Amino acid sequence: MKLRRVEHVWSKGISVGTAVILGAGDGIGGAIARRFSEGGDHVVIVRRDLNKANDMAPQITAAGGSASAANTDVREPEAVEALFRSIEDTTGPIDTCVYNAGANTNKPLLETTPKLFRQVWELACFGGFLAARECARHMVPRGRGSLLFTSATSGVVARTGYAAFASAKFGLRAVAQASARELGPAGVHVAHVIIDCAVSTDAIRERFAKRGIDIDDMAPDTLAQPESIAEQYWMLSRQPRDAWTHELDLRPYAEKW
Amino acid sequence: MKLRRVEHVWSKGISVGTAVILGAGDGIGGAIARRFSEGGDHVVIVRRDLNKANDMAPQITAAGGSASAANTDVREPEAVEALFRSIEDTTGPIDTCVYNAGANTNKPLLETTPKLFRQVWELACFGGFLAARECARHMVPRGRGSLLFTSATSGVVARTGYAAFASAKFGLRAVAQASARELGPAGVHVAHVIIDCAVSTDAIRERFAKRGIDIDDMAPDTLAQPESIAEQYWMLSRQPRDAWTHELDLRPYAEKW
Amino acid sequence: MKLRRVEHVWSKGISVGTAVILGAGDGIGGAIARRFSEGGDHVVIVRRDLNKANDMAPQITAAGGSASAANTDVREPEAVEALFRSIEDTTGPIDTCVYNAGANTNKPLLETTPKLFRQVWELACFGGFLAARECARHMVPRGRGSLLFTSATSGVVARTGYAAFASAKFGLRAVAQASARELGPAGVHVAHVIIDCAVSTDAIRERFAKRGIDIDDMAPDTLAQPESIAEQYWMLSRQPRDAWTHELDLRPYAEKW
Amino acid sequence: MKLRRVEHVWSKGISVGTAVILGAGDGIGGAIARRFSEGGDHVVIVRRDLNKANDMAPQITAAGGSASAANTDVREPEAVEALFRSIEDTTGPIDTCVYNAGANTNKPLLETTPKLFRQVWELACFGGFLAARECARHMVPRGRGSLLFTSATSGVVARTGYAAFASAKFGLRAVAQASARELGPAGVHVAHVIIDCAVSTDAIRERFAKRGIDIDDMAPDTLAQPESIAEQYWMLSRQPRDAWTHELDLRPYAEKW
Repeated sequence: MKLRRVEHVWSKGISVGTAVILGAGDGIGGAIARRFSEGGDHVVIVRRDLNKANDMAPQITAAGGSASAANTDVREPEAVEALFRSIEDTTGPIDTCVYNAGANTNKPLLETTPKLFRQVWELACFGGFLAARECARHMVPRGRGSLLFTSATSGVVARTGYAAFASAKFGLRAVAQASARELGPAGVHVAHVIIDCAVSTDAIRERFAKRGIDIDDMAPDTLAQPESIAEQYWMLSRQPRDAWTHELDLRPYAEKW
Repeated sequence: MKLRRVEHVWSKGISVGTAVILGAGDGIGGAIARRFSEGGDHVVIVRRDLNKANDMAPQITAAGGSASAANTDVREPEAVEALFRSIEDTTGPIDTCVYNAGANTNKPLLETTPKLFRQVWELACFGGFLAARECARHMVPRGRGSLLFTSATSGVVARTGYAAFASAKFGLRAVAQASARELGPAGVHVAHVIIDCAVSTDAIRERFAKRGIDIDDMAPDTLAQPESIAEQYWMLSRQPRDAWTHELDLRPYAEKW
Repeated sequence: MKLRRVEHVWSKGISVGTAVILGAGDGIGGAIARRFSEGGDHVVIVRRDLNKANDMAPQITAAGGSASAANTDVREPEAVEALFRSIEDTTGPIDTCVYNAGANTNKPLLETTPKLFRQVWELACFGGFLAARECARHMVPRGRGSLLFTSATSGVVARTGYAAFASAKFGLRAVAQASARELGPAGVHVAHVIIDCAVSTDAIRERFAKRGIDIDDMAPDTLAQPESIAEQYWMLSRQPRDAWTHELDLRPYAEKW
Repeated sequence: MKLRRVEHVWSKGISVGTAVILGAGDGIGGAIARRFSEGGDHVVIVRRDLNKANDMAPQITAAGGSASAANTDVREPEAVEALFRSIEDTTGPIDTCVYNAGANTNKPLLETTPKLFRQVWELACFGGFLAARECARHMVPRGRGSLLFTSATSGVVARTGYAAFASAKFGLRAVAQASARELGPAGVHVAHVIIDCAVSTDAIRERFAKRGIDIDDMAPDTLAQPESIAEQYWMLSRQPRDAWTHELDLRPYAEKW
């Protein structure tokens, strides 16, 4: 018997398309960009800093992929609207949109300034809503497409010190849920990925180093690799529409939860 | 045997105190103000419109209670900080803070403007965070106090059309949870009340009237009365600190859920 | 203004009634029995061991209350059906039924024998279903009554070692939810109380003593008192039917969660 | 750039192994068996009725796969223990165990006999616990393996009439969660798949036919196909251990939820 390796790519009628990664700066966003490129998609790398966005594109093209970069502040309604229109007009129809922006913070209530609370929300939640609006605008008329949100432990539980971050991530989860219920019947798949662990990135390496831990000395697979997470985004974007996942969690085997 | 009717008022060491109701305009906020007044508290009625806030105070004083009114925009950090300081300085220590502001909205994603999304969030979530900060500031040093948040169905599920409202209410729930975990061990009780139904208010009367339904013709008890809901806020504020509730739901007996 | 102390007893049209406590052996069940007695109800104390059930009744009658004892195995369908019929025939209509049976256990999967798994389920879940059936039988025709379930941390999260206990408690929560949705519109209030902490009972005293902790030396209010918990069961049984709570949690102010 | 089609099979160090499907009778179980066979695994089809189990094996072998059948009552502790030992001894180490047994039922409380409640639990929950025990016994010493549970809408919400089925499925979810937390750190992946929809099977065809609906006339993809669901079980069994999913939901694009 022939082993089946062909994925359900027929299900959305796309083999090669366009994926937009909003917030492709950290380990996860970059890995997602590479994964969709390997899958055959042209990827649009969106960061606020054009230099950083531009840095990533050559990695992808050097590997044989197709990529472009855009510097857009994902918190600016007009900028986000213009970004989507521009990609649609010049690159082609957007098949997948990944909202991966958001910055963690942990402070007691009195040290969480109103300004910080608002900033955390704008990046982790408001920008996600703006992306959902653009997917509603461009994907619904075509009756297909995927909108994937990156969430975290703080998307489902609000621990001490996480008033700002958890509030934003809870809010994003509601955007994802409401969008899934509204856009699903129109053929657009909305999913919410709860990354319930630390991910092996440069930021985590530095944070652990401050505690005296070299992550290279840790037991294998005790940190999630960005590539393993990215694989799930790819998987979600390929699910046939008769069996879509809205929410899944991810954590390493040894993680306490 | 003597029937026990005395409540656990000893448990927080307060018999008569001060309750601040942020967003005391609708049926629920007004009923909460009256209930705390009946319980012996001085109540501070906070609305953006001073005339409306002033309207309510005489109802309470006419019934023998003690009340004052303040016009504060609960979304303005400096205004909220000043409000709490003023009450603490002039009226006395705040024992209970109820955050009851928030306006429902239901629109498809593309009709939910970024401006509306932000406004809904500022009133239903950001203001709640500002209140939590002030409770952290004033209640924690005293090691007692209650902070009670009004939530809704949209605090736990994001239905179609509720991207804005549910996102704000999910966000508020995270503020409540993180605050409970941070302030609880310091003696401040934070609770989150999920009102999973329509409440018998003038606003609901009008909304039902547009559908041709006179709520006076409805079967008894099929809408929640503001007084019944207010009773639960009072109950929560009196729970002894060895058995606090963080979250409870409320709905009429015949409600579908 | 007169302080309002009268509870909403009118709401269910009962001032003095009958409360049946299934599993009234431990601290919580006993405290619930006393609380309902103080509230004016005749209480029926149900335990498997008649001697132990009989021991509690005099405490209640000595305090001026009215109580009776029954030895019933709450896991036996015919016995539970006979118990309810007998109380209805001889004592009067049952207004409140509290299902408080269940025994905790924590063992790895391979040490959790199938026999133990089944026993834990029969006591913590199956018996609760049998009680729900009898409430459906006797309360629904009268259009009133309360059915209150005791749950625990393991009712909402299944930690390591709790496969048996959490499975039973998750199962009980489903019984409570399905019963609430079926019986609520018929006027019967079903609630589920999540006790998310250790409770100050003899069993806990012994368990802590083994770890070298004398619970009398612990900071005040760091363990929940059975009386504080019992107060919530009473409160739930008195909620007016336009604003019922289905689920609430309880824990001391300093509890980690 | 070469498109990446090779799955992360390296991650568990298995390319060809053994999958045991407990409850392989309905559409989902059969599809899972075929999917794992296509993936290269020998599959063991377990049903209570040997004839039915035997019927499925030839389908798989005719397609070039390798399969065997076993008639085991998954509710019998000794039988389940013997089944696993026999497979381990004769076929080889079990890499994947799928627990797919369980029969839905919807009846009011008074029509749900205690006998029915117990039967539903034994099949949908108790048998799952027995399977978890055997996975703990055989997989943990090897430090790898997957245990996948089939759940349903009733695994997360208990609607009217589902006291029995939801209680069993809630209970199974707790078994899955506790097992994941216990066995995960030992290298065994436990996942819980919430199938939140009707699945296109013969049983559903008959049920819809009674309502006058021919499922062949329904809009495409409005019922989940067993093959689409089975794909997710395969995916879960191949996730690298640095990024495991414990819980995911599945439903067609147009499903109301």
